[in-house]
Amino acid sequence: MFSRRLLNDQDVRTVSQEERVHRSNGDRLAKILSDRQLAQFGDSLLNFAYSLALTETSGRPKGTKVQDKILAEAAVKAGLRKHLPRRVGRGDVANSLEALLGHAWLEKSLSLDEIVSCLKASSLNPAENFTQLAELALSRIQR
Amino acid sequence: MFSRRLLNDQDVRTVSQEERVHRSNGDRLAKILSDRQLAQFGDSLLNFAYSLALTETSGRPKGTKVQDKILAEAAVKAGLRKHLPRRVGRGDVANSLEALLGHAWLEKSLSLDEIVSCLKASSLNPAENFTQLAELALSRIQR
Repeated sequence: MFSRRLLNDQDVRTVSQEERVHRSNGDRLAKILSDRQLAQFGDSLLNFAYSLALTETSGRPKGTKVQDKILAEAAVKAGLRKHLPRRVGRGDVANSLEALLGHAWLEKSLSLDEIVSCLKASSLNPAENFTQLAELALSRIQR
Repeated sequence: MFSRRLLNDQDVRTVSQEERVHRSNGDRLAKILSDRQLAQFGDSLLNFAYSLALTETSGRPKGTKVQDKILAEAAVKAGLRKHLPRRVGRGDVANSLEALLGHAWLEKSLSLDEIVSCLKASSLNPAENFTQLAELALSRIQR
């Protein structure tokens, strides 16, 4: 009975530690995704990478801005939405993807070449490449 | 008399070939500097490189757009103005520097690291770093 109880206590402690680590990871990701300065940096990175992908695909120089609509759609598909506060606008959802990519690039988890080649993939829906990119960043960043 | 005349003819031909090469180089540069698509690509490159330079200097992520005023001032200082049509606005002068940098980067005459380290130099006048960058690009591009 004693040993069984002890075991239960250990189980509970283990679960609760895992839960704490899980929550702390979630908090860290939530903090990254809501960082406005990181989103502004990520914006300049993604506009350049997307311009480069279009330039390399078309063989003609292109300079463009990625639409918030596309980024927000990709952020939702990649599961970033649940880490954001409930009541946020489309701009904030788009920013979360920019912040994630800015963070991944700055910590060298993703290279410019990797980002560009992800964005060069031919997809029917342009948000699809950004979804794949966000999923790649999520799998790579240190948590 | 005959040989002297022949020599003169050769001299004239040589000078005129050099002049033609010189003019053709000038035409090529003028074409690059007035290429709007190249300027749009260069805009995304310079905004990213400048954001990165500010991020690395401050130790905090920054995302920013370089002001046309700064780019136009640097373009004039680097001697790009004389290759542009006489009556152009400040936006077009700024574009010429963006086009030059976009071209230099696409033909791999300048790396992102080189651009960023040029923009990280501490200058009293922010246009000074862009002037140096334009001069570096001019010395590197294939003409």
